[in-house]
Amino acid sequence: MIIDCAVYQQGKRRPGTLALEQAYEAACEPGAFVWIGLYEPDEHEFDSVRREFSLHELAVEDAITAHQRPKLEAYDDTLFVVLKTARYLEADESVEFGEIMLFIGPQFVVAVRHKPASELRGVRKQIEDRPDLLRFGPGAVLYAIMDRVVDDYLPVIEGLDKDIQEVEREVFSEAGSNPAERIYMLKREVIEFHQSTAPLVEPLDRLASRPFALLHQDIGEYFRDVEDHLLRVVERVAGFRDLLTSVLDANLTQVGVRQSEVAMRQNADMRKISAWVAIAAVPTMIAGIYGMNFDHMPELRWVVGYPLVLLVMAVACGGLYRAFKRNGWL
Amino acid sequence: MIIDCAVYQQGKRRPGTLALEQAYEAACEPGAFVWIGLYEPDEHEFDSVRREFSLHELAVEDAITAHQRPKLEAYDDTLFVVLKTARYLEADESVEFGEIMLFIGPQFVVAVRHKPASELRGVRKQIEDRPDLLRFGPGAVLYAIMDRVVDDYLPVIEGLDKDIQEVEREVFSEAGSNPAERIYMLKREVIEFHQSTAPLVEPLDRLASRPFALLHQDIGEYFRDVEDHLLRVVERVAGFRDLLTSVLDANLTQVGVRQSEVAMRQNADMRKISAWVAIAAVPTMIAGIYGMNFDHMPELRWVVGYPLVLLVMAVACGGLYRAFKRNGWL
Amino acid sequence: MIIDCAVYQQGKRRPGTLALEQAYEAACEPGAFVWIGLYEPDEHEFDSVRREFSLHELAVEDAITAHQRPKLEAYDDTLFVVLKTARYLEADESVEFGEIMLFIGPQFVVAVRHKPASELRGVRKQIEDRPDLLRFGPGAVLYAIMDRVVDDYLPVIEGLDKDIQEVEREVFSEAGSNPAERIYMLKREVIEFHQSTAPLVEPLDRLASRPFALLHQDIGEYFRDVEDHLLRVVERVAGFRDLLTSVLDANLTQVGVRQSEVAMRQNADMRKISAWVAIAAVPTMIAGIYGMNFDHMPELRWVVGYPLVLLVMAVACGGLYRAFKRNGWL
Amino acid sequence: MIIDCAVYQQGKRRPGTLALEQAYEAACEPGAFVWIGLYEPDEHEFDSVRREFSLHELAVEDAITAHQRPKLEAYDDTLFVVLKTARYLEADESVEFGEIMLFIGPQFVVAVRHKPASELRGVRKQIEDRPDLLRFGPGAVLYAIMDRVVDDYLPVIEGLDKDIQEVEREVFSEAGSNPAERIYMLKREVIEFHQSTAPLVEPLDRLASRPFALLHQDIGEYFRDVEDHLLRVVERVAGFRDLLTSVLDANLTQVGVRQSEVAMRQNADMRKISAWVAIAAVPTMIAGIYGMNFDHMPELRWVVGYPLVLLVMAVACGGLYRAFKRNGWL
Amino acid sequence: MIIDCAVYQQGKRRPGTLALEQAYEAACEPGAFVWIGLYEPDEHEFDSVRREFSLHELAVEDAITAHQRPKLEAYDDTLFVVLKTARYLEADESVEFGEIMLFIGPQFVVAVRHKPASELRGVRKQIEDRPDLLRFGPGAVLYAIMDRVVDDYLPVIEGLDKDIQEVEREVFSEAGSNPAERIYMLKREVIEFHQSTAPLVEPLDRLASRPFALLHQDIGEYFRDVEDHLLRVVERVAGFRDLLTSVLDANLTQVGVRQSEVAMRQNADMRKISAWVAIAAVPTMIAGIYGMNFDHMPELRWVVGYPLVLLVMAVACGGLYRAFKRNGWL
Repeated sequence: MIIDCAVYQQGKRRPGTLALEQAYEAACEPGAFVWIGLYEPDEHEFDSVRREFSLHELAVEDAITAHQRPKLEAYDDTLFVVLKTARYLEADESVEFGEIMLFIGPQFVVAVRHKPASELRGVRKQIEDRPDLLRFGPGAVLYAIMDRVVDDYLPVIEGLDKDIQEVEREVFSEAGSNPAERIYMLKREVIEFHQSTAPLVEPLDRLASRPFALLHQDIGEYFRDVEDHLLRVVERVAGFRDLLTSVLDANLTQVGVRQSEVAMRQNADMRKISAWVAIAAVPTMIAGIYGMNFDHMPELRWVVGYPLVLLVMAVACGGLYRAFKRNGWL
Repeated sequence: MIIDCAVYQQGKRRPGTLALEQAYEAACEPGAFVWIGLYEPDEHEFDSVRREFSLHELAVEDAITAHQRPKLEAYDDTLFVVLKTARYLEADESVEFGEIMLFIGPQFVVAVRHKPASELRGVRKQIEDRPDLLRFGPGAVLYAIMDRVVDDYLPVIEGLDKDIQEVEREVFSEAGSNPAERIYMLKREVIEFHQSTAPLVEPLDRLASRPFALLHQDIGEYFRDVEDHLLRVVERVAGFRDLLTSVLDANLTQVGVRQSEVAMRQNADMRKISAWVAIAAVPTMIAGIYGMNFDHMPELRWVVGYPLVLLVMAVACGGLYRAFKRNGWL
Repeated sequence: MIIDCAVYQQGKRRPGTLALEQAYEAACEPGAFVWIGLYEPDEHEFDSVRREFSLHELAVEDAITAHQRPKLEAYDDTLFVVLKTARYLEADESVEFGEIMLFIGPQFVVAVRHKPASELRGVRKQIEDRPDLLRFGPGAVLYAIMDRVVDDYLPVIEGLDKDIQEVEREVFSEAGSNPAERIYMLKREVIEFHQSTAPLVEPLDRLASRPFALLHQDIGEYFRDVEDHLLRVVERVAGFRDLLTSVLDANLTQVGVRQSEVAMRQNADMRKISAWVAIAAVPTMIAGIYGMNFDHMPELRWVVGYPLVLLVMAVACGGLYRAFKRNGWL
Repeated sequence: MIIDCAVYQQGKRRPGTLALEQAYEAACEPGAFVWIGLYEPDEHEFDSVRREFSLHELAVEDAITAHQRPKLEAYDDTLFVVLKTARYLEADESVEFGEIMLFIGPQFVVAVRHKPASELRGVRKQIEDRPDLLRFGPGAVLYAIMDRVVDDYLPVIEGLDKDIQEVEREVFSEAGSNPAERIYMLKREVIEFHQSTAPLVEPLDRLASRPFALLHQDIGEYFRDVEDHLLRVVERVAGFRDLLTSVLDANLTQVGVRQSEVAMRQNADMRKISAWVAIAAVPTMIAGIYGMNFDHMPELRWVVGYPLVLLVMAVACGGLYRAFKRNGWL
Repeated sequence: MIIDCAVYQQGKRRPGTLALEQAYEAACEPGAFVWIGLYEPDEHEFDSVRREFSLHELAVEDAITAHQRPKLEAYDDTLFVVLKTARYLEADESVEFGEIMLFIGPQFVVAVRHKPASELRGVRKQIEDRPDLLRFGPGAVLYAIMDRVVDDYLPVIEGLDKDIQEVEREVFSEAGSNPAERIYMLKREVIEFHQSTAPLVEPLDRLASRPFALLHQDIGEYFRDVEDHLLRVVERVAGFRDLLTSVLDANLTQVGVRQSEVAMRQNADMRKISAWVAIAAVPTMIAGIYGMNFDHMPELRWVVGYPLVLLVMAVACGGLYRAFKRNGWL
């Protein structure tokens, strides 16, 4: 699907949108360049683009099938750039990735988006308001898109940061839950996010430090700025990985401690119950003795026998109670 | 065993297969090259190949004994390439490795496969359908084979990814199994897969960035594309290693939690049983007291003695029951 | 807000402070340079600065929004430097970060501070006392500020070191607390501190080894000295990370050991109580037997029956007591 | 002790062995070189060698004292190479290290072995059978020895691999042993092996890629081949380290699981015993009640009293039994 | 404090010691150089040195305050070197660090020691016995001191190695101690030792590979030798870190296993005691039944009643005993 197709000249958009055929012609006018935005183009649409701009077959193959890694490929007089877009989904705390492929030629930009990618229309508006930049030609468009893609990484970083902080609170709270699965799933997200962002550093560095013939040389500083933002993302992601490893370890300790506390309380309960049973066993034993039916048991005849035995029982129980209390068993 | 042997000229296969002797002659015709496919050749077969193409003795030695690491060796006017093929075996969740050795000369390609290697015949078909590529000579064949080998890594990646996801579900399920052994064995596979793929990055980079004299210079971009796919494999494998380390740690926590839960339930059972025994001990003790045979026990003479004692017993038991209930012991 | 604004000539400050407008003029006098200190400038203030010194729009954008990573950007004839300041807060054992952005031109220095940044006024005093350095121009000011920022990292290092030592004592003390959360939070601080300091190494290295045209060449050694201090900070921070990982592991062991010791003591208590109950069960059983009401129980008639049974009970209890004592159960 | 000392000319050994003095003279004949093999030479022997070939004092010092790291030192026109040999001892599953020091000059090779080093005599035989290689001069001897030393690492790798697999089986078997010590000791071996092999990569790379003036330039490819074998060793050793770390972690899980299983079985036993005691407590309690000696206990007079009570006891016990059974306590 | 101050000419020490003032003059004589050894110099002493040799202010600042990291700084025609000395203290198994700062000029060496540093006097003796080396000038002194400092690392390595082996024995012994704290403290030492030694590799590499103008070019090989010894130290320290991480993990397993064994023994004891109590409960219950006072209990009248009941009791107890024995509970 063709999203937008326009000619830019002298840093300004020529009004209206063009059909593809007109675009090819316009791309030959000196000082002009066309910017074609495609969304999951079908083979037919793309084939005409490929032929008109004589794009390299390998780049075209990559552009049609998604799931590429971020990269910058320089063919004779065309640059092919793959970008990974990322969006943080609040609902299920996950990161959704999309892809944008760009063909940059001396007089054209072809942008191919794959669902679910970040919107590019806003970018077009933004850059059209900057004739000073647009004057740099296709390189300015490349900058504008990369800048947007990298800026869109920031909300993802914030979302992951917030999740990690929640998980920390959960680990160190008294509540006693075990967020091991959530920690692990965050680590998975972070690793995938790393794989989508880190490989872009090298292409940006190449764009910033040894500009390609087909890019205006003053655009280098702009790519340096994007690289700088990307580096910040990559460093924070590296920090997240380290934190999540530590929090998983800390969680093991915390879960262990909480379980141990439960076990200790249970053990203390058992000890208390057993201690009471032990106390009750003493009068039972004494009573058993004086329940024996021997003919000759002189104590049984004593008038004070019964109260004396009750006293002995009471003293024995009282003694045990105090001893157990002293040991902290009751 | 000779699998196939053909001459290619002007990007087209000359019809039919050749005997080895004819191949040597054909390799001297200007603008032609031969492609010889061997499968675990015996010494005799290989010796003739070696002599005709004057292959370097070190390369020949490596080609006969398997278990090499992936590499690219440049001898005077021959390239020697070792590739590791990989195949994911669904049945026992393991990865099977094979080896392909390639000798690339100005006018010949000798491909030696070791069991169990990936099929090359499909590759031959594919490349024979691309006369535009074949025109590049032996380098095109090298590209086609490397492209196939690297593409064949993808199903392995998918297989390992699926296994890791299964293991994750097992770790975090309620079922309570302990997949430590499976996690470890996956890690073993992943490490071995890493050792078979990562060393290939450097040779591909050399092929892509500073093409060898004997390769057509336009073929470089094709190797760059293969390198790119390989990098994606290597990065995902690195991610797998990290994930498996984390999942092994998480498993320790989960197994510990589940075992603790069992222990806690057992402890709670014990506490309940002990509490009941303690309740039963009280009437037993009281009964024992009134079962004593003292002559002077006035209570025994009371008419209300017996019902009173039963009442006392009931009250005591009821009181204990309520107290234990309040403590959560029953 | 404008903090200070002065002209320096021949290594000396021209007395008084200037309005911004005068500053721009002064910056054009040969052999002079102005140093403007701003604190969270509003758009209006900054806009005039930007226009007068024709600062690059990307640098200006970075200077207004905080949360940049440390970096050095070279625009045509301006250097843009971002520094992260750090301050250790004793009260809550945390590190507070601030930011300083510097624009260095051939005849001007613009320093922008973001709250809460370290004070720069002290730096101005210090450097004004060193006419020999000031003679080097804006580069000397850049050196003085970077030197101060890096020196201010040292108290943070000391504070973190002290905290880590406290945590170590807590882990290995007998007291039995579980400082897992504190260890983790320290690790978080250390990672953040690393992200604020490590990226500054590369800019300092560039300043030290291949001086920029607009810096006096003799200033290089001074930046080398700052880099050296920074490297010491970075190395110690790396050591902290390693230590905190180890101490978290050691804490797991220590907490486990202490919990196990409690559990063992509880188990030993239970065993002791149970052993006493077992001892009491024996005379209870014997007494029960002689409490049976059979008509024909010859022992009951014996005169020595009762004392004999008491003896048997005593011997049995004594025997059990000794056996349990021998096993260490009592 | 002098092991062997011979002159080589035109790729052939001149028959017989020489005394040291003759060797020095032979080393001056054009087109010839001597190869002196020493085994733990005493100071006197070595001193004459040192003087004749004017070896550098630092190299000589290193050659006499063992315990060097593998290295390659280039002095004016002498190369000094230190190699670590390794041998796997099946008996006590350990690796024994030895050292070989080599002085390579334009017309001499001095090989010094330290006990227990791998045998070099076999190497001499082998290389003497390859006049084509020997023609390259001392460099060929260097290659032959390095090739042998590196090839001798392979059995060590196999031995360690076998040990690790044994340890894996032990960890994941049902048998219940705790191989933590064995795992740790294997890790120790692997680390030491790494320290003996990894530093040799860089010297081999130098030998392969920028050949030294005193080595024949065609020998480079041979060193590349040795380097390749060494890299395979180093990569596998790195894999071993990773595996051993994982297996130590997995062992912690497995040991914990097995211990937990024992504890659970013990707990289940305790619960069963306690349940039986609880069942027995009920008739004991009832019997105690009817064993009381109150004058007014009407039930005692009933004819059906006794059987009724026995029925009640049986019903109570039966009820408890069924309840406990239902809970899984019996 | 001035330790020693002498002039060296032609590789020989001019007899006697000099006052500082004479030293400055001597340092101007062609072909001579002075070597001044200072021990924690006061400001006054150092100031005169600084002025005479016009040392760079930054180096002087570093030389007065201790706690620098090892480094090599090249100022116009002076080298400034910071070395960390280390000494293993047997008594408390710790490593004591000191510092030596060196200023190397074309005709002077100023060595500043900070307590507690290794003795340098021995070095002076040693190097004075090597006129061939001394002839190389100040560079020879730098080599001699660095060589000594690095050689002094070896006893530290040996001491740490011995400690680690002790700790290993403790971990894997039956004795059952928990050396977690000792392991951790060793790790701390090792990290600190790493920070004192590893940064010295780069300076040594610079000294060895691209000699400075003010050092004799033949001295490079000597620094290469020192670097080599240092690399061995650094590699072993890296190995120590890895080992200590593993031994801390292994200790967790071992401590857990030993604690589990104690718990299992305690549980087995409890089971045994409970089993005996359960056995005793049976005759108690039976005796209770026949102790009931029902009028109509025919068994009580039987002559064989009493012996029969005793038999039943014995059989019941015997049966239980055998069953418990079979289950392994007794």
